[in-house]
Order: sequence, then C-alpha cells, then structure tokens
Amino acid sequence: MTDLLRHIHGPADLKKLAIEQLPDLAKEVRHAICDQVAKSGGHLAPNLGVVELTIALHYVFDFGHDRLLFDVGHQCYPHKLLTGRLGLLPKLRTKGGMAGFPEPRESPFDLFSVGHAGTAISTAVGMARGDALNGEGDRKAVALIGDSSIVNGVAMEGLNNAGTLNRQFLVVLNDNGMSIAKPQGAMSSYFDRVRVSPTYTDFKKKAHEVLKYIPGGSALEGLYHRAGEMMKAAFFTGHMFEQFGFVCVGPIDGHDLPTLIDMLNEVKAFDRPVLLHVKTIKGKGFDFSEGDATAFHSPASFVIEGCRVEMKKSGRSFTTAFADAMIDIMKRDEKVFALTAAMPDGTGLNKVIPLFPERTLDTGICESHAMDMCAGMAKVGIKPFFAVYSTFVQRALDQVFQEVSLQGLPVRVCMDRAGYVGGDGAVHHGFMDITMFRPLPGVALLAVSDEANLKAGLEFMRTYDAGASFVRYPRENVPTQTLQGENVPAYELGKGVFIKRTGGRTDPIRVVGAESSTPRRSGPTPAGASADLSPNHPRPDLAIFAYGTLVYEAAEAMKSLEQQGYDIALYDARFAKPVDLDMVEKLVRQSIPVLTVEDHALAGGLGAAVLEGLSDRRVPTDLVYRAAMPEKWLYQDSRAGQLADAGLDAAGIARRIRQIIDERNGQVPPVPQIHVDANGVKVR
Amino acid sequence: MTDLLRHIHGPADLKKLAIEQLPDLAKEVRHAICDQVAKSGGHLAPNLGVVELTIALHYVFDFGHDRLLFDVGHQCYPHKLLTGRLGLLPKLRTKGGMAGFPEPRESPFDLFSVGHAGTAISTAVGMARGDALNGEGDRKAVALIGDSSIVNGVAMEGLNNAGTLNRQFLVVLNDNGMSIAKPQGAMSSYFDRVRVSPTYTDFKKKAHEVLKYIPGGSALEGLYHRAGEMMKAAFFTGHMFEQFGFVCVGPIDGHDLPTLIDMLNEVKAFDRPVLLHVKTIKGKGFDFSEGDATAFHSPASFVIEGCRVEMKKSGRSFTTAFADAMIDIMKRDEKVFALTAAMPDGTGLNKVIPLFPERTLDTGICESHAMDMCAGMAKVGIKPFFAVYSTFVQRALDQVFQEVSLQGLPVRVCMDRAGYVGGDGAVHHGFMDITMFRPLPGVALLAVSDEANLKAGLEFMRTYDAGASFVRYPRENVPTQTLQGENVPAYELGKGVFIKRTGGRTDPIRVVGAESSTPRRSGPTPAGASADLSPNHPRPDLAIFAYGTLVYEAAEAMKSLEQQGYDIALYDARFAKPVDLDMVEKLVRQSIPVLTVEDHALAGGLGAAVLEGLSDRRVPTDLVYRAAMPEKWLYQDSRAGQLADAGLDAAGIARRIRQIIDERNGQVPPVPQIHVDANGVKVR
Repeated sequence: MTDLLRHIHGPADLKKLAIEQLPDLAKEVRHAICDQVAKSGGHLAPNLGVVELTIALHYVFDFGHDRLLFDVGHQCYPHKLLTGRLGLLPKLRTKGGMAGFPEPRESPFDLFSVGHAGTAISTAVGMARGDALNGEGDRKAVALIGDSSIVNGVAMEGLNNAGTLNRQFLVVLNDNGMSIAKPQGAMSSYFDRVRVSPTYTDFKKKAHEVLKYIPGGSALEGLYHRAGEMMKAAFFTGHMFEQFGFVCVGPIDGHDLPTLIDMLNEVKAFDRPVLLHVKTIKGKGFDFSEGDATAFHSPASFVIEGCRVEMKKSGRSFTTAFADAMIDIMKRDEKVFALTAAMPDGTGLNKVIPLFPERTLDTGICESHAMDMCAGMAKVGIKPFFAVYSTFVQRALDQVFQEVSLQGLPVRVCMDRAGYVGGDGAVHHGFMDITMFRPLPGVALLAVSDEANLKAGLEFMRTYDAGASFVRYPRENVPTQTLQGENVPAYELGKGVFIKRTGGRTDPIRVVGAESSTPRRSGPTPAGASADLSPNHPRPDLAIFAYGTLVYEAAEAMKSLEQQGYDIALYDARFAKPVDLDMVEKLVRQSIPVLTVEDHALAGGLGAAVLEGLSDRRVPTDLVYRAAMPEKWLYQDSRAGQLADAGLDAAGIARRIRQIIDERNGQVPPVPQIHVDANGVKVR
Repeated sequence: MTDLLRHIHGPADLKKLAIEQLPDLAKEVRHAICDQVAKSGGHLAPNLGVVELTIALHYVFDFGHDRLLFDVGHQCYPHKLLTGRLGLLPKLRTKGGMAGFPEPRESPFDLFSVGHAGTAISTAVGMARGDALNGEGDRKAVALIGDSSIVNGVAMEGLNNAGTLNRQFLVVLNDNGMSIAKPQGAMSSYFDRVRVSPTYTDFKKKAHEVLKYIPGGSALEGLYHRAGEMMKAAFFTGHMFEQFGFVCVGPIDGHDLPTLIDMLNEVKAFDRPVLLHVKTIKGKGFDFSEGDATAFHSPASFVIEGCRVEMKKSGRSFTTAFADAMIDIMKRDEKVFALTAAMPDGTGLNKVIPLFPERTLDTGICESHAMDMCAGMAKVGIKPFFAVYSTFVQRALDQVFQEVSLQGLPVRVCMDRAGYVGGDGAVHHGFMDITMFRPLPGVALLAVSDEANLKAGLEFMRTYDAGASFVRYPRENVPTQTLQGENVPAYELGKGVFIKRTGGRTDPIRVVGAESSTPRRSGPTPAGASADLSPNHPRPDLAIFAYGTLVYEAAEAMKSLEQQGYDIALYDARFAKPVDLDMVEKLVRQSIPVLTVEDHALAGGLGAAVLEGLSDRRVPTDLVYRAAMPEKWLYQDSRAGQLADAGLDAAGIARRIRQIIDERNGQVPPVPQIHVDANGVKVR
C-alpha cells in the first residue's frame, strides 16, 4: 500500500497529488476507515461508497472558501480524513475523539452538525443567499445528498426553492440505490429507470441533434415550434429534477476519479443550479460490505478473518425485543399494521416485515408522511404502530398535533433511541418527546423499563383507543436480571407501580400507619440523621419516581444507598401523561421526598408534569426533586458515559439522593426562607 | 336566480339534478357564500374557485362511501353546502355555527379537521391502504389539493408514496396559480409552462401518433427502440407528477361542469394513481374577487355597493405593527432579512417586500425549508427574521432543534397568531411554542404586549446573537391605550418588568420593609380578610406574572379588583425562557402569591417554567398559581370568546384572583395537608 494519506493535512496537500495518485489515496482512505470501524463500530458502507467522490470534490473545489454541506452526514469520514483529522480516527465516536457526523467544533471544514436527513440543500440555499447578500457570491455552494434523502420533504422543498436561485449551486446526488435501507416510494423506481441506461446523457444530446436534422416541414418539427418551450421540456426533460429548475447531468460513475474530476470541473463554474447524478456502490471496496451494505451500514465492531467477516455479538437490544413483541401482537391482532420511515434495521422491523408483508411498510425517509398515513389508517380502524427514533418523531410534531390528536385518532408510536444515544451524539439524543406531546389532548405517553414491561406497554397501546399513544425505550440492551420477573402488571392508563424498597420493606403508599414495627435501618446510621427519623419510623427516607430504563439505574443506586443505611422506595412512573399524581401526592402527603428520574429534558418532562400537577392540586412541591437531562448538548460517548455525565447513572442517582436526604436531615433548608414578614408578622 | 340549493340536503339530492341544471346551482352556491362572507368575513376566493369542481366531485363520486380529503381545507364551503349544512352558514366561523375548515363533528362527509397544508394526500394514502386491508378497497380515495400546497414537503412525500399504490387513488390538483399568495419556487414556473398551452393534452396524443408515422429507418425511431421505456418516459412525460408514478390528466377547465363530470367519470374507475390537473380561477364569479384574489382570500366583512366593494376597516393589528417595525429595523440594519412561508398578507410582510425586494423572500408553503434557509443565512452573518404563525412553526421543530439550536445560530422567528386565533378555530391555535422550544439550549423565548413592546422585543432580537430567539404575539389589534406609553424599557435577556400596582403603589420587589406607611386598601375590605393582612401591610395580596398581551387582560382585571379592595401588582414576564426567576422568587419570598398568566398550554408553558425553576432552586412553589389554556380543543369563536372560555380574559383573571386570595385568607388550604406523620411526629 502507498503512504499518501499520512501526509494529507488538508485539501491543499491533496491538490498537490497527481490525478494518477488519487486511486491509491482512495484505497488508503478506505482501509483506514474499515480498520477503525471493525474495531469500534460506526458507519461503514456509506463512507466506503463516497471515497472517490469526496476526494474529487476536495480536489476540484476549495472548501476553505466554498461551502460543502453534507446531508445526513454519516458519509463524512473520508472528508474528515482529508481535512486533517486522521489523528482523531482511532477515537471514532468516543468522547473527545472523532464525531461520527460532521462537527463544526472539530474543523471549520464542517459547516453544520447534522444527522437528520434532508437538510443539506435547504441550509446550502441559505448560505448561498447569505453569501450573495454579503457580496461573497463567488463562494460556491455544494450539497451532497443520497437518493433516499432527496425524496424527504425538506429536501424536496429545498430543491423547489434552490431551483429559483440565479447563481452557482451544485447538488451532488449520491445515488447508491440504497441510502440506509432499500429506498422506497415511486421515485426510487424512477431512479431505477434512469440508472439502467448508461447512455442516458449521450442519448439526450443525440436526440436534440437528430431533431435538428428532421426535414423542416415534418409534422414533428411543426409541433416543436408550435409548443415552444413546453414541448422542449416534454421532449428533452428526462430527469425529474429539471422540473425543479436544475440542469441535470449524469448519471456518471462515482468511483471513476478522472471522470468525477472532469465533470465537477465542468459544472463548477456553471452559474445556475446543477444536479450532478453520481452512481456509487454502497460499501464499495470490500466484498463483504458491497455484498451486504445494509448490515454494514452502521455495524458494531467485527472481525475479518480471511474471507469471513464476523460481526461481534452484543446482547439483546430493546430493538430486538420490540421486534419480537410486535410479531407476537401481529399474530394475535390482524388489525395491527407496523411501519418505519427508512429504519427497518434500526427499529427492528426488518425482522417483522418478512413475516407480515401485507401489514408492514417502509415509507422511506418521510416521518411526516408516515405519521399522516398512520392517521388515515387509524381513521378506518386499522391499528398502526409507527416504529421511529425519538429524535426523528420531532419531524412529525405538526402531524401529531393536527392529523392525529385533533382528530382523536389512536395512532401508536414506538420511540426507539429515547434519551441519550451514545456514539451518535448530540444529533440523535431523544429528549423532547414528552415536552412536545404533553399539551395534546387525549395523548398517552409511556415508557418501559425492560422486556416484560415493553410487552405489557405495547399490549396497552394495542387496546388504547382514546387517542394516540407513544412508548419510549432507549438504545440499550434489555436488562437480563429483571426487577419484576416476567409477569409484570398490565399497563393501566396513568398508573405507576411500586417496584421495591430497600430491605425488602413494603410500599409506603399502602401501609400508612400500619408498619411501625418494620425495622428502619439495616445498615449503619449516616451522620446527621435527624431526630424525627426514629428507628421505628415507617416512612422511607425518599421515594424514587423513575421513568423507563432509569428504573434500573435507580434500583442499582438503591443497593449502595442501602449499604449506607438509607431507606429508599422505588416506583416505576410508567406514564408521563397522564402522570400518576395520586401516587406522588400520597407520598408527599406522608412527607416522603420524591425524586423524579428520567432521561428526557428537565424542561417539560416527567418531573415537570409532577410539579405542574401537584401545584394545580395545591399540593406543596417542596418535597419534589427532579433528575433529568441537563440543558446542554452532550456529544459522542457511550450511553453509560452520557448518563454518568448527566448524573443519571446509578452512581449519580445515589449521590443525588444522599445529598437530598442529608440536606433535609440537616434541618436547614438549602436556601433561607422568610417566614416572618417585614413587620414581624408571621406568615405561612 | 333559481331555487335549487335550498333543496339539496345531501349529495343524493344533487345527483337528481340534470347536468344542465348544475351551472345554476353553482351560481346559487357562489352567491350564498359571497353574501355570507361579506357579512361575517371568512375564506372567499378559494371557495369561489372550486364551486364547479366540488359539484362535479359530489355528482360523480359517492362520498358517503368514498373518501374525500381536503388539503388546507379553506375551500370546503361549497362541499359543506352540498352536504346538508346550508342552515349552518349564517353562523359561519362563529361558536356553534359552521367551522371555516372541514369538521368531522359537523358531518360524516368531513373526514379530517384540517387547516395546515399538505396533509390530504398522505392521510388519503392511509385511508386507501386501511380500506384495502379492511377488504373495502372499493371505497375510492380522492384528495383535493391546490398548486401551492402540493409543493409542500409533506405533500411531496405523500405523492412519492401514493405513486406506489396499486389501486384507485385520485389527486385533484386545483391549480389557480395562486393558492394563498402567489406561488413560489421553481415548480410554480413549471406550472406556468404547463398552463400556457391549452392543447397540452392534445399535444401529447398527437406527438405519440406523429412518432408512429416517422419513417422506420429514421435515427429518431432507432433511438426510440434502443432506449425503450426510458426513452418513452423522456419523450412523453411532460407532467412532473408522472415521475411520482401518477397517470396525469389535464389541465382541464375547472369551471366547465360537463367537462369536469366527463373527466371525473373517465378517471374514476382507473385502478392506479391518477392526478387530474384542473385549472380554476381563484375568486371566480365576481369581478372584485377575481381581480384581487389575494385581498379576498380571507377578507374581513365588506360591503358591495354597485361596482364598488369596500372592505370594512378594523383597527391596527399586531401584524401591521410588526410590518412597520420590520421596515424600521431593515432601514437601520442592512444585515436583516425577512421571510415568510406563503403568508405575506397574514404576517404583514406584503408591506415589507416591495420596499426591500433584495432582503425579503416568500418561500411558499414550506416552513421546514424556510427555517433551514434561515439557519444557512445566520451561519454567514445575515440576520434572518422568519415571520410565521405559531401553529405553523410546529412544522419546523426538528429544524430548530438540529439546524438552528445545535449550531447555536441566531435565527429570529416572529410568531404571529400565538394563543387563541378566533374564527379559524382549533386547527390554528398557537399553544405549543413555549413547550416545544424550551428544552433547546441557547434559545430565547419572548412575548410582547403592545406595539411599543413589539418594537423593543424585535430590537432585542436584532442584537441577540447567542442563539435563536422567538417572539410571540396574537391575532389581535394592538392596544390603543398603553400601560407604559411609547418608551418602554429595552428588553434584557431573562428580565421581566414591573407594570403597575393598584392604587398607584410601587413595586413590592423594590420596597420590602420600606413602605409600611402606604395605605393598603383603597376600596371596601372583602369578607374573610385575614388577620395578618393589616391596613398598613406593604405587600400586595397577589402579583400577576403575565405573558404577552394577557398583560392587558390582567391590567383590566385589576380595575375591578381594585374596586373590590384588592391590592394587586402586575409584572410583564417578557421571557418564558429564560424566565425571570429572580423576580418571582423575590415575590414569593415576601409571601406574595404569584399568578402566572399566558395564552399557551398549561403543560410546559411559562407557568411550568416558573414552577420548575423555583423547585430546582428549592424555593417553595405553594404561592404559585397558573392560568393558561386548558387541555381541550376550543373551536371557532371570537378570540375574546375563547379567552373567556379559558378564563383568560379580564373577568376570568379577576375571578381566579379573588378565588385565590379568598381561599388563602380563609387560612384553610384547599386540600388538607399532613403535617404530622403516622407516629405523631411533626414533619415539615
């Protein structure tokens, strides 16, 4: 192998290479990426597909000055390696290392931190317009977008608006026939048609010439003149994006560097919007990744042994558990329909689709459409289950508002990747799904902590007809040692459940005044224990009201707290809407401090729902404490690391609880309170 | 005039008429609508444009069985009159009367309650799929959509998915070249091209025939055979929606009833997706409405006197005040750019655009794209101000999350129609703009109460560079008698301001213990006044912490409360994020109850932000009360009526305040509190 990549510290170094050297560089880039992803996991096939294209783009344009916008962004690794970030690669997707998506904090060559699809054209339009307004219209704008992303609504809106730009604007359509999963929708078959003919470009040229030579008096020529522009459009417009006002070029071979460079040089200076259609092979360069580009889209680590590639096994994920639960439900209820927006692997539906081809659908990347389709189905009595990432359902908020909630339709939404997502980082965290849906009448919001609860939660949703229901679960494995065993109580709208109490004591809600003989502390008494917390005291020191899998973090926290002599009760909130206010009220009325725990934003989440609900009932909230995701972006890391950073892992929860109890036992409120007014009159 | 309409109680009666009678019916429908809108205001031009089309649809299809979905829905009046709702028309857009949008609560002929654009195709796809799954595939699906809506991202996603349907599916494209305002984007010029040739359909037929007669050996014929399907697509595909998998028919004349009925009968039984392109004239039937379809899109009431039509003047709206303020800002700051997504009239930008053609833009109906374009512009130092309805910005939540907030970009969003919107009803209320944006780091959320504050708020946003900022104001006139005069204090991030106190007393925040000589009650003492509220007491009975124009409702409430002897202080919260917690904390630490007042959902709004913030500071919240929009849909009515229903008008606020104070003075908390535990130990 050559030794070129090590000497590329930026595009300037790349430009020093001869075109003949570039295929060797491509090979090095490809191996560097594959070796790293094999070790750490990450996006593989999308990056292997764009190695030559990225090299050509940097070879032809000057992205220190020009604008390069990535769509989705999971295909940015080659770009990162060519812009001085080879040294970060060994720490791919880990804390302080290289982000798996474009990241302006890493390099000025990354303009937008992205991960959601369909945005590049629209942001590029904004930069192009802005540059022109700033008198810097010479900065060229390039958006790189895949064939699955370009049919997303935002992208199509962007195309429609870009078509009106009266300046250079290049959209590079990276057409691998398979952006994340197999592309969906009518347009994908359109691409298929265009793709079959390598002579498409030639053909258009020739047809135009031929028409010139047809005898002037022929009926066709007459028609041509009569219909003018309209006829030309009808006759010589093969590429649908020409309807959006783009000059369309291609398709060309996306792995042929000289052609790519030639063609980019051709279109570079064009002073109106151009779409360059580039055919690439997803996973290009290795047999295993070309052969199974979906499996190698974003694999966990794997081992290459000769011709065999073995994916490392990880445990049983919520995603897999969801798939199995859906299969069970669909066997039992033939009105159930399951769908995904281009994430059959990510949501687990790839396992479900082959079993129920008539009752499943992959809509492609179009969460808004998918939600509306669910609304239409629910309207006629079908039970749609839309499997989608928490962060992507943000794209369907308006549809949930109008087409679902306002109509009172029982659409079911299964939100994977709720809370922190680990290596994908800030662009994928799911922290808005409570706050954005909570104001909507009739909506039920639930979370599940383990596989048995997931099954129970889905079963609740199957029969919940009063409105839409949303369940959330994280990018995590299901707990193997469960808190409640297999037979968990059925989900009941707005009802939380008692999970356990330290020392095997019973639920304080059910035992007020009937439990005074229960020994209070099994461990050593902490310093500063207050006088009123006598050894025979029936109340726990604190109750945890946890949401989703953080029930397990809380249970783990209780182990160390028990060791330290704290008496803690644990409740699974189950519902953020309607939240079980009766449960919390009973606790605080027994003077038991309550800590709400959730991996959702502090603003508007479960804890907020508790505060609001108690306040509206005129129940004091001074015993309520909240633990949730702080208002700051957490970047790539393990999910465990992110939970720890946020104080939401077992250690963080235990720390917080000790702090709360110790503070309260100190009998000095943390902030002084005025109980006597300026005139010396006592007030409540 | 004929007397047909009165006897149409449903589509069955319509079908009894001869085709020759239908133009007369159309005339009656047109006059009925025009007469009513002249009286009450409402959507006029869109409805006048689809009279014949609606008649033809009901004449050909059976929408008791088949599915008719309206896009946007403001063109549903003729449909309502033909489905038995003539009697409701005199109460158009008023409480208990006829909704201005499709409304399933009114009639089973209305399937979805809509008002946001782009949804019809997607929901129709869902119903079509659902009907097929239910074994009712004979129910035909029809979506009626305008040319401005069809380029919305959701609609295009819907088209792309509808194209794969293997069954009947009809999209009727109501192409008036002008759906709400002038259509935007490249596609609109595409429509222009198609529209110029009335012989388009003929032409395609002829071209096909002509090609057959070209000598077999010609180069063209050779090419034709060589490229096969691809070439046919290139040659005979003029309509871009054919690329989405639709058979495209038209354009046909949308006011020619026999043609419409013929053509609908033709395409009715077609067993794959068809797009019928219908040319209509917006405002058809009256000179004034055809001549100025934008002004008569949704006019207030007007008077027709002979040939003159006079629009009734209403007061100075926030919309107009916003336009003038923007003009001022754009004169002063050449980096400011203003844009709207198809609402130049609704947002006031129609006044701004002619003055600054280079620094304004109407993007068409595509809020997601518009927000991304703002992000791109902000990235290069332009200051975009996006004028948009609160309810429509829900469509750009994901863009605000990723492309704006995650990048820390200072995009400015001006949210008109915040809170209750009056006659437009449930589909247009803006009640989510706090809760959905509040978790996002760096975002500033503000509201303005009057014109001087609007100017000050916009000026704050112009210079606020730390992140995105969102200002909200309602569909209302600006107050003419202002609380603070013209010179209001500048907006300072996260700072509320004191407005006034009953009896001209001063702000209790600044006067703790220094005001004991202030006479406390100027009016009669209410029954049940508590012992500690002595006549010399410096504290007010309650402080109102109000948001936006509800500051004025609160001020009005204070007048009656003062009469009744209550001492109330009023603060303008100004910011919901960051909320002025110091201000509220100082109040509650002086034992002054605080009522938050906002026309936003209770869940996650300003009041929630106060509760959360105080709780996290460990400040007791038992003195905090919240007034906000209750969790239920309020339908068409005046905005005043809706505020009254929600208890957010002056009377409702006064009632609530009396209730709170009287309850507190009764010294009995509304819900019993346990201050002694089960063992008789006193706890705090």
